[in-house]
Amino acid sequence: MEKRIFNFNPGPAAQPLSVLKKIQKDFLNYNNTGMSIIEISHRSDEFMEILEYTKARIKRLYNLSDKWNIIFVPGGASLQFAMLAMNLLPENTQGEYINTGTWSTKAIQEAQIQKKNIKVTASSEDRSFSYIPENFTTDDKSAFLHITTNNTVRGTQWHKIPDLNIPIAADMCSDILSRPLDIEKFGIIYAGIQKNIGPSGTALVLIHDDMLKLIPDDLPTMLSYKTYINKDSMHNTPSTFAIYCCGLVLKWIEEDMGGLKGIEDLNKRKAGYIYDEIDSSGGFYKGTAEIKDRSLMNATFRLPDEDLEKKFVQEASKIGLGGLKGHRSAGGIRASLYNAVPETGVKALAEFMKKFRKDNS
Amino acid sequence: MEKRIFNFNPGPAAQPLSVLKKIQKDFLNYNNTGMSIIEISHRSDEFMEILEYTKARIKRLYNLSDKWNIIFVPGGASLQFAMLAMNLLPENTQGEYINTGTWSTKAIQEAQIQKKNIKVTASSEDRSFSYIPENFTTDDKSAFLHITTNNTVRGTQWHKIPDLNIPIAADMCSDILSRPLDIEKFGIIYAGIQKNIGPSGTALVLIHDDMLKLIPDDLPTMLSYKTYINKDSMHNTPSTFAIYCCGLVLKWIEEDMGGLKGIEDLNKRKAGYIYDEIDSSGGFYKGTAEIKDRSLMNATFRLPDEDLEKKFVQEASKIGLGGLKGHRSAGGIRASLYNAVPETGVKALAEFMKKFRKDNS
Repeated sequence: MEKRIFNFNPGPAAQPLSVLKKIQKDFLNYNNTGMSIIEISHRSDEFMEILEYTKARIKRLYNLSDKWNIIFVPGGASLQFAMLAMNLLPENTQGEYINTGTWSTKAIQEAQIQKKNIKVTASSEDRSFSYIPENFTTDDKSAFLHITTNNTVRGTQWHKIPDLNIPIAADMCSDILSRPLDIEKFGIIYAGIQKNIGPSGTALVLIHDDMLKLIPDDLPTMLSYKTYINKDSMHNTPSTFAIYCCGLVLKWIEEDMGGLKGIEDLNKRKAGYIYDEIDSSGGFYKGTAEIKDRSLMNATFRLPDEDLEKKFVQEASKIGLGGLKGHRSAGGIRASLYNAVPETGVKALAEFMKKFRKDNS
Repeated sequence: MEKRIFNFNPGPAAQPLSVLKKIQKDFLNYNNTGMSIIEISHRSDEFMEILEYTKARIKRLYNLSDKWNIIFVPGGASLQFAMLAMNLLPENTQGEYINTGTWSTKAIQEAQIQKKNIKVTASSEDRSFSYIPENFTTDDKSAFLHITTNNTVRGTQWHKIPDLNIPIAADMCSDILSRPLDIEKFGIIYAGIQKNIGPSGTALVLIHDDMLKLIPDDLPTMLSYKTYINKDSMHNTPSTFAIYCCGLVLKWIEEDMGGLKGIEDLNKRKAGYIYDEIDSSGGFYKGTAEIKDRSLMNATFRLPDEDLEKKFVQEASKIGLGGLKGHRSAGGIRASLYNAVPETGVKALAEFMKKFRKDNS
């Protein structure tokens, strides 16, 4: 096999090697159709089966009742920021948002561009988005509270989804299907699939029937969640390749990794290697998130100075540990540890961190 | 190599075999990065290079001046119907549309949903969309005239792009980059890439600088063409895989097929085999489009009765000629003959048509 690196990219991100090999093997002839997966019709029996089993796996993994709609929408979370406000904040409706960083801020801005009635209920901006706010209250009359469950830039994550009087609307781009969920707390969940469950360009949206009454009837067809629900994500041609890949990744989660409990245990172990090294480094590595809110998906940390950070990224890259540079708005180091980043890779990174610290202290 | 069929699907559709093989070969390790193309960052040097060379090829193939912007937008033409109206029909602006069938009708509807000021300047609905209207006039004050350059359902195509007093806005989904174009007649061209130049889920949009003054400043970020222009299609993560595939297909057009002139000649020869058989079949096969407006991309025809049409599709499928069933709204047979459908495949279909006619007359 050709050389592969350990890929800590924040998204698009590492995918399971067994899935990549399966895609490669079948690429010229999907399921004996004599066509590539990218050549078959979205209305063919073969693709309909892919769509159905992909949805069925999501339903099983999250224990979704029949009141949940599972749809695929083109684009990523950035389009969802706008669609969420367009669909679920009709006139005389209020939405609430918690601001935990870059992506929450963008979600808020897209509602504001549309002049929607929103309220920022809590924010962690006061301490550089290094924590997840607690002890806030929400209005009974609000349609939803929006949260970003995992914050890739500053490395925080909601470990306890709050019990509220209103449904939660969640941007789950960077921790979708990485752990079990108390699904009944949510009204809508959306995620670009390019981190934990597939390639880029498509969003998975889970929306509960109770939210549908909010959706105005006069939206542009492709911007209404109703279209995707009524046409089973097939009003027009969806990204067939992305859905196909997503289905294979979900099969891997369900059949090879022990489902969401199994993948959560793995993700906890993986993050543990990195945070243990940070915490035992005597201050050489400084985590940027408060310990209680540290993300299992993106471990973000600083070194004593920026030159050392640059050297860290370069030397890591030389031994096949890639994608470790922090987000351009935050600096430092970010190790993204999504589902498909293998435990051996994370161990190798922790070992490298230890050695680099000794060599540079 | 594994069994491959000749694929006459209307989209997603046949892609060049050499391109599919290249994708397959490099799938676990793109350009020696040690990552799959679906795992690399959209902000990596490798992907930036893919985006740049893909745009450069489009620029060369269509002889675009620097006043043209080349962007990739998630979704397909259906989202473009809405975005076109949203971006280019601000208040006090009129748009004109020619209705040549299913897709033109949808473009019109999306402008109407947004209560835009539009006018249907001509239509071929009076004769089941079997022809392309001529002899219409457009108002100087209109922002654009919208046409669907190729109509996949009824098998018609604009062979002469009209000379007008206003720019043309074109849905070119099914004949993009299949022939040379008089580009200066257009103001905007858009196309889902899944027929002639790649997999599904992404649209290519070409927009001239002169159109940009129409775009309102208060659009949702991901629905404004300006965002894609200002951020080089990378405000958020685009479908990296789709753009990568598109780049490879364009390379094939430019380097292997003699560019747009070469591909047009090929497409004319291919369509010729099918239309010749229709015209010499003594009425057994009846073309659904008027001869002067017949599409080079989708040859649509009827057989003496529906049972024979069913039998035709079944028998063709048995010998490896797939995807021939007509659109569910039109019935009959449709052979889609996009760029990557090989000449040998079309010859095989013409031979089959001849034999089937003899066996069933």
